[in-house]
Amino acid sequence: MRTDNSRKFDHWIRNDFKQLNTELELAYQEAGCRDTIVGVGEKTKQTLLDEGNLHIRALLHEGNTDEGFDNGFDLLGNVGFFMAACRRHDLTEPSRERRSPLTDASALAMQLGASLGVIPRFASAHLETHNRALNGNYKSFTNLPDEHLFLEYNTRGVFAFIRASEALLHSLPLGISHPVTHDLLLAAQADLKQVIANNRALFDTLDVDRFFYAVRPYYKPHRVGLHEYRGANAGDFAGINVIDLLLGLCRADDPYYSQLLVDKFLFMRPDDQLILRDCMRRRSLLDAFLMALDDPEATRAAWFQRNAKAFLDVCALHGETAIQHHELLIARFIEHPAHRDGLDQQSDLTASGPRLDVMLRGLKKLCDLRSAANVDGLSTRFADLQRLREAVDHA
Amino acid sequence: MRTDNSRKFDHWIRNDFKQLNTELELAYQEAGCRDTIVGVGEKTKQTLLDEGNLHIRALLHEGNTDEGFDNGFDLLGNVGFFMAACRRHDLTEPSRERRSPLTDASALAMQLGASLGVIPRFASAHLETHNRALNGNYKSFTNLPDEHLFLEYNTRGVFAFIRASEALLHSLPLGISHPVTHDLLLAAQADLKQVIANNRALFDTLDVDRFFYAVRPYYKPHRVGLHEYRGANAGDFAGINVIDLLLGLCRADDPYYSQLLVDKFLFMRPDDQLILRDCMRRRSLLDAFLMALDDPEATRAAWFQRNAKAFLDVCALHGETAIQHHELLIARFIEHPAHRDGLDQQSDLTASGPRLDVMLRGLKKLCDLRSAANVDGLSTRFADLQRLREAVDHA
Amino acid sequence: MRTDNSRKFDHWIRNDFKQLNTELELAYQEAGCRDTIVGVGEKTKQTLLDEGNLHIRALLHEGNTDEGFDNGFDLLGNVGFFMAACRRHDLTEPSRERRSPLTDASALAMQLGASLGVIPRFASAHLETHNRALNGNYKSFTNLPDEHLFLEYNTRGVFAFIRASEALLHSLPLGISHPVTHDLLLAAQADLKQVIANNRALFDTLDVDRFFYAVRPYYKPHRVGLHEYRGANAGDFAGINVIDLLLGLCRADDPYYSQLLVDKFLFMRPDDQLILRDCMRRRSLLDAFLMALDDPEATRAAWFQRNAKAFLDVCALHGETAIQHHELLIARFIEHPAHRDGLDQQSDLTASGPRLDVMLRGLKKLCDLRSAANVDGLSTRFADLQRLREAVDHA
Amino acid sequence: MRTDNSRKFDHWIRNDFKQLNTELELAYQEAGCRDTIVGVGEKTKQTLLDEGNLHIRALLHEGNTDEGFDNGFDLLGNVGFFMAACRRHDLTEPSRERRSPLTDASALAMQLGASLGVIPRFASAHLETHNRALNGNYKSFTNLPDEHLFLEYNTRGVFAFIRASEALLHSLPLGISHPVTHDLLLAAQADLKQVIANNRALFDTLDVDRFFYAVRPYYKPHRVGLHEYRGANAGDFAGINVIDLLLGLCRADDPYYSQLLVDKFLFMRPDDQLILRDCMRRRSLLDAFLMALDDPEATRAAWFQRNAKAFLDVCALHGETAIQHHELLIARFIEHPAHRDGLDQQSDLTASGPRLDVMLRGLKKLCDLRSAANVDGLSTRFADLQRLREAVDHA
Ligand code: HEM
Ligand code: HEM
Repeated sequence: MRTDNSRKFDHWIRNDFKQLNTELELAYQEAGCRDTIVGVGEKTKQTLLDEGNLHIRALLHEGNTDEGFDNGFDLLGNVGFFMAACRRHDLTEPSRERRSPLTDASALAMQLGASLGVIPRFASAHLETHNRALNGNYKSFTNLPDEHLFLEYNTRGVFAFIRASEALLHSLPLGISHPVTHDLLLAAQADLKQVIANNRALFDTLDVDRFFYAVRPYYKPHRVGLHEYRGANAGDFAGINVIDLLLGLCRADDPYYSQLLVDKFLFMRPDDQLILRDCMRRRSLLDAFLMALDDPEATRAAWFQRNAKAFLDVCALHGETAIQHHELLIARFIEHPAHRDGLDQQSDLTASGPRLDVMLRGLKKLCDLRSAANVDGLSTRFADLQRLREAVDHA
Repeated sequence: MRTDNSRKFDHWIRNDFKQLNTELELAYQEAGCRDTIVGVGEKTKQTLLDEGNLHIRALLHEGNTDEGFDNGFDLLGNVGFFMAACRRHDLTEPSRERRSPLTDASALAMQLGASLGVIPRFASAHLETHNRALNGNYKSFTNLPDEHLFLEYNTRGVFAFIRASEALLHSLPLGISHPVTHDLLLAAQADLKQVIANNRALFDTLDVDRFFYAVRPYYKPHRVGLHEYRGANAGDFAGINVIDLLLGLCRADDPYYSQLLVDKFLFMRPDDQLILRDCMRRRSLLDAFLMALDDPEATRAAWFQRNAKAFLDVCALHGETAIQHHELLIARFIEHPAHRDGLDQQSDLTASGPRLDVMLRGLKKLCDLRSAANVDGLSTRFADLQRLREAVDHA
Repeated sequence: MRTDNSRKFDHWIRNDFKQLNTELELAYQEAGCRDTIVGVGEKTKQTLLDEGNLHIRALLHEGNTDEGFDNGFDLLGNVGFFMAACRRHDLTEPSRERRSPLTDASALAMQLGASLGVIPRFASAHLETHNRALNGNYKSFTNLPDEHLFLEYNTRGVFAFIRASEALLHSLPLGISHPVTHDLLLAAQADLKQVIANNRALFDTLDVDRFFYAVRPYYKPHRVGLHEYRGANAGDFAGINVIDLLLGLCRADDPYYSQLLVDKFLFMRPDDQLILRDCMRRRSLLDAFLMALDDPEATRAAWFQRNAKAFLDVCALHGETAIQHHELLIARFIEHPAHRDGLDQQSDLTASGPRLDVMLRGLKKLCDLRSAANVDGLSTRFADLQRLREAVDHA
Repeated sequence: MRTDNSRKFDHWIRNDFKQLNTELELAYQEAGCRDTIVGVGEKTKQTLLDEGNLHIRALLHEGNTDEGFDNGFDLLGNVGFFMAACRRHDLTEPSRERRSPLTDASALAMQLGASLGVIPRFASAHLETHNRALNGNYKSFTNLPDEHLFLEYNTRGVFAFIRASEALLHSLPLGISHPVTHDLLLAAQADLKQVIANNRALFDTLDVDRFFYAVRPYYKPHRVGLHEYRGANAGDFAGINVIDLLLGLCRADDPYYSQLLVDKFLFMRPDDQLILRDCMRRRSLLDAFLMALDDPEATRAAWFQRNAKAFLDVCALHGETAIQHHELLIARFIEHPAHRDGLDQQSDLTASGPRLDVMLRGLKKLCDLRSAANVDGLSTRFADLQRLREAVDHA
């Protein structure tokens, strides 16, 4: 059960707030704004700021109301939507501030984040897996079709990854040689194929400029209280990393990957954090298959041939999703427009904060790990998969 | 990490124990035993008892070794396999005892059960979802193909139900009107179709008498310490009840169903218990759709027609699995042979303990709830589904 | 936040219900009833039954309202108060029924119990550690001073045990040789001394007959749904067993003690269950000290002399509380009056159900374990403590 | 169970590592070093670096070994001891690096931190509440008596705060008017008096310069991977904040205090985080007492006078510990020597990183909140406590 103030704020976020952002986007478009939006829609911006602050002040003053995790998390999302919109409309900007000027919103967000065990800003769960629709309408910044397209495809992709991760998790207690592990690997394949189809569809339908100039800016880093937090991205759920780790393509003792995990944890919901934590202590399927290679007899067993083959196909599909994300989605919707419009040097271009080229280098590494590419200076599982493939092919 | 004693016992369960049970089953078959097995294979029975007790004594004496939940749960399964085999071979029999004569096994099982938060006997997780295979061989009582067939199909069925339950759980935060809820309902449909195909295949391939006389008896109720515990059955996992409750076909405030849940909880693993508990506090999808009926406008919305249709199809498929379980599997593999061989009055026929007709009446009720049958004296969701169906058909 | 129905029921339990029970107790007393109460206050009994059922029916029909664990647990307590009073006034009686005639109360209690992870009846937490007072009044069956005396001293004793258990738990990560472990052992001593003083005061002030005939009967076993559940007793909290296990006086692999734990777990709150489970996997302090004896040098170390001495004193105090409980409280308030009035053969005399002599034998065993008595046929830690004592004394 | 490598590393930390640090401290002292230690003991520093790295490399290469939470947390502490010592001996220095040059230690620490749910560095739990002693020796950086004094008194103080917090937590379900709440408030008073005595003793015995120049430097902020983490301090446990919040002296919706909580959470162990989170959703005792003031009748009740009085005394004692911490400990052991030796402008002086005056201003605020001081511009509970005091005094 929620308090009245909390319900009213939710109503505002789902209606007037969306309307104001939509108006501003249309005004920016009309004014031909690309990266700078100074001087456009100033009155609307102020309305958004004032109305939001009013709601938040009321919530802050009613104090601790213990509405349960789900309602608290939802409220944090609403505060986060507001703070992210303020950042998008340049009402706040982390490099020109030492602490967020949205004092009340920060206080409320920090109280909620601390009490929930997550970062004090909206995360992708608020947009995707936990974005409740009322009468067909889920929460979004604007009413614009590009944002809806982006969110729906993201959500579908995320759930498909999650289902693949669940299939792999179910196989752990059975071990790599159980007959039903084969069924679970096939299930994971089917799920990853859905990711691929979904990415393709997004690639084909999303408008590059509308995305780049009217959706992406809501995901910029901004401050809450003293600290700056990177933006949400579609990847802030455990499932994708569960797949990485269980397949064995990425490893938690790799300094690059463990840094990524350290930075990502609090962007996940606590239940998701637990899933990922639990999976960090497991032996990967790849390592289990490699151990089986030690016994040449075992590799000739029917179970080995069947299950190793199915496993290799899962790896290949996961690699394909990564390549697609990197070479289709990021290239088309971020890299090209940034380059075209001379924005690559800008520091606030990406959700995570660093300069575009730095971020791209990082994402390339991730893509190489996931696709087990044969690259110098990066310890991917290329050779290990090769060994396994040979044991399957030459049987 | 496991202790040496624990590893040796596991090795025994996976090898000699299986061998001994297999020999006994073959001896029973040879001797033409059906329900009574007195006097057959007495020496082998004694060997099984002695060897098992020796292992267990060693484990009990090494004391508390804190090997983590997974190893503890696995060990409990092994003790449970032994105790269940003793029951099957009439080395123990609850109605002639006041406490289990397997004192050491009971002490170890009770310590493990209490420390793990589950009943102190093997549960279906030990046979199915958490039955680790080594080199292609999972744990079983015998080497007989009928038992393997039964276990593998059960395991596949269980995972298919679990995946359906996961799809429904993912839809909860989105609500019934979210576009991606449609995708999740389709996923649940696909999973339930797998259950149906799987049940059909089991029906077609399992041998009635071999199942009835050489597999089923390992699932009889028996004592651990003072209390008698019903046997494991394929249904002791949360997923099936999660589906019941989320769809809204069964309700936790129905006295029949809440008694079933009360009796079932400790047969599940603690993580499974939590999933089911959490889901008991949710509003069902059916109730959510019925609330939408209050607003005639809403029912004409595209989301309603699309999602309600997909929901109704999920319900129909879930009902179908229940009817199949009752009218095909239970009828063919339990009811008919019991009737044919005049065993219906026997009290230890079923995993749950009561006389066959009592159990069948209970299972019929469950089947009627799940298939929303229109029966007198049982409050199924027949009429509610009817109302929803009309809102979809007449749109 | 609670629903209106839930609030109204709570109000009834705290007022009219208490009044009705009080009237009945006074009527029983007036009529000179001891063990049988048939025919006395029948109209009042019926009022209690009808009013309670009315409240419960309303709650059952409003369905699943997800008010959070605390409110759910509190409501279960209220349903349990009502069911226990019905048993006390002989409106239900397990031996003459196959299932509880309180169908609605059972359904509600089972739904709540299953969803909370506890037995579906009131437990001692409802009376003691989690019995919220409003304006100075906590929940009780009657307004009679004897019940209040009993509850308040119990609650104080329980908290003193809990604090002792917390001190011991804090010492685990430090180990037996840490200087601050000494401080924690002293803290445990102080807490146990409070238990002793408190038991003494209860012994001195509680009226034997008023307790035996007007308080105890509310704690009788009764059915909820199909099953009979033993009554609550002051010991249904983890702390006391945590002390047993951490000191090492009782061991979870002892068949008597593990049966006790198995039977007790669901009478505890889930958080309490977790504490006890976690502690079952720890090495006891006694075992740790005994290991140190292997190195004669170590036993001469100052830390050993200091900490072993403090540990032995904790054990002695814990033993004293057990002896006091057995020889003062149980003897005076249960054994003597039962014997005097010829009720020892009665099956429903005790909270746990068995005949008095059986129960007393069980409790004697527990007392011997806790006080490490030197008794035949029971494996207490007498000899082990003796060895440790010698290492301390002869240093 | 731990791996061999893990055991060897622990042995090194408890022996050679301690020896090397001790030697270095003595060399620094001998050389008359105060704040700079360049050029002194360079060979010993290198030995420490090389030996530590060797151990860590072995651990990193043996990969994920799933030894359970406790062992993992302990190992993280050991890596953290090493990294902190490197910082102390200037082998790393965050302002001259962009990422920690201790690449392997960082990778291991990040993997452990991420998988455990804590910051990837040692925290105060490693030094205090979870610092296991072997044969009387707990872990420390050096063998110097000043460090031991500091650690032991800190540990005692921490446990006394924890016990006070436990007493307050136990009172929550009882409410402010329960007779046993009075007992729990008295228990909290006794615990806080122990804190006070303990602080006093530390003040009297610790050597200012030895602490300032040979203990404190091990608590400096340093990098792990990319990020800089502030040092551990004695306050990184939930208990102290539980007291703040339950008493009501600090509030989670105060921007200063919620920032403090946000920054502190991951420095606590996960079980501690949960305790604090749970307590953030509770109503404070002070707020509960203030609500009772609305009913003038209630304030004349015996329970009110008794319990409110006891509560006010708890508040006074908690305030006293805060004042003592600020005006005795911090002043004597940090502020004065820093000022005397002209180090107040230095950025790495404090565990938390900011310049001394900034940190001191923050701590003053905290002290004012806890002691409910009457200060301008800070919303303490001064007036509220005043109102309550009047209701008690004038009864
Ligand atoms: C227009 C489409 C998309 C674009 C332009 C895009 C771009 C990006 C970028 C730039 C990042 C890095 C964020 C940062 O560090 O700043 C990222 C991360 C990520 N994205 Fe996307 N993305 C798109 C769609 C998707 C979809 C449909 C999915 C599938 C669910 C997805 C999954 C992820 C994941 C999992 C990450 C986190 C990094 C990782 O673990 O891989 N993205 N994306
Ligand atoms: C030879 C095939 C099977 C037979 C004879 C059979 C028989 C039974 C019986 C007699 C029970 C009631 C147990 C008792 O109370 O004593 C039961 C329960 C159950 N069985 Fe089966 N079963 C079979 C296969 C399966 C399969 C393949 C599944 C799918 C996963 C399944 C799922 C369940 C479930 C979920 C329950 C628990 C009651 C419930 O919640 O529905 N069974 N079964």
